[in-house]
Amino acid sequence: PGKKVLIVYAHQEPKSFNGSLLKIAVEELTKQGCSVTVSDLYAMQFEPRATRNDIVGRLHNPEAFNYGVETWEAYKRGGLSKDLVEEQKKVQEADLLIFQFPLFWFNMPAILKGWMDRVLVQGFAYDLSKVYDGGLLQDKLSLFSFTTGGSQEMYSKEGISGDIRYVLWPMQHGIMHFCGVKVLEPHICYAPENVSEEKRKEMLTAWTQRLKTLWKEEPIDCSPEWYFK
Amino acid sequence: PGKKVLIVYAHQEPKSFNGSLLKIAVEELTKQGCSVTVSDLYAMQFEPRATRNDIVGRLHNPEAFNYGVETWEAYKRGGLSKDLVEEQKKVQEADLLIFQFPLFWFNMPAILKGWMDRVLVQGFAYDLSKVYDGGLLQDKLSLFSFTTGGSQEMYSKEGISGDIRYVLWPMQHGIMHFCGVKVLEPHICYAPENVSEEKRKEMLTAWTQRLKTLWKEEPIDCSPEWYFK
Repeated sequence: PGKKVLIVYAHQEPKSFNGSLLKIAVEELTKQGCSVTVSDLYAMQFEPRATRNDIVGRLHNPEAFNYGVETWEAYKRGGLSKDLVEEQKKVQEADLLIFQFPLFWFNMPAILKGWMDRVLVQGFAYDLSKVYDGGLLQDKLSLFSFTTGGSQEMYSKEGISGDIRYVLWPMQHGIMHFCGVKVLEPHICYAPENVSEEKRKEMLTAWTQRLKTLWKEEPIDCSPEWYFK
Repeated sequence: PGKKVLIVYAHQEPKSFNGSLLKIAVEELTKQGCSVTVSDLYAMQFEPRATRNDIVGRLHNPEAFNYGVETWEAYKRGGLSKDLVEEQKKVQEADLLIFQFPLFWFNMPAILKGWMDRVLVQGFAYDLSKVYDGGLLQDKLSLFSFTTGGSQEMYSKEGISGDIRYVLWPMQHGIMHFCGVKVLEPHICYAPENVSEEKRKEMLTAWTQRLKTLWKEEPIDCSPEWYFK
């Protein structure tokens, strides 16, 4: 109770299975007394492209545009665009970040990748030598909750798509761990489009159940062994 | 000679190191007699968001928007938006796809991820049971050419960012191999921003040299062993 949760949600359709998972998280966490904020990226028409428009006013080096350098400089002088400042404020206030999305091409949809690219800039999320366990977003938790097209068998070590943990490495280790954010076990719903209505209901119930004891969970050990053992 | 190459390029600044790598590829491949097309995503203001706008005319199921189903149906009836049709035509004609970009968060920038999400739709790039070695884009080659922020030591098996091959899995296996496209060795320039001008020149020369014998290269063995051994 009293915890703050930011859900970054990337699905176009409220009636989708992802939409149901979002709804469940908002309801259950609110019931627990958490304060829940949702960034509904498609509804916001969130901009995924990292461009000069993200910097208000003069560039540090207008001769050769370097996005990383320019957003770092802009962050320091308070010159990032309004939409980024708003997202950063939500992140700053949150105890837990939940990312809810359908897996697209072994990864998050571009609109969510754009949120990572543009919101987690140097100075805000990490800095020179302040990365991984020293990242700037320590004392926060994250949780990747997603649906897949392929079955659990396909996403196994012997399956054609490989262990599902392989696709988690860039997201959980390369982004969250890099910024110092701790990572809870992912929540994966395999192929909801290809299972029975009953099975889909079970999946939704399982999400509700997990959320009930979420705050007692320990973060995963974010080491290569977890992903590739 | 006579080969067709599509370079999908994702950098905002022509004067960047990525811009130089692009320029080299266009010049060297053209000199060889190849026909080279460039999709300069930022210059095109390419749309990365997968939305209803990608379908021209009536939806298959307007009650609940499902991007995968709608683009599949639209592809079959010739109802995809013009920008997607143009990119698909370029892919269809190409013998080799080169992706040139800076690694952002252990992955491609959102604008390039959006190109994958929106261009490689079902019916065009893969279909029911036509995936991986049976994918629809067989007899094509691909090559991921990118720059990193971190050093080669960081991106090693014992390094803090892990083996660079871990980040290649979703791109090379999850996207290209899934569509039946063969994959050449990636071309990686480590931390060009942090090395001497001389070293940067060596990196550019190495790319020119590699391109000279590119057509003699064999694709990698796209198995989990290549990535995780």
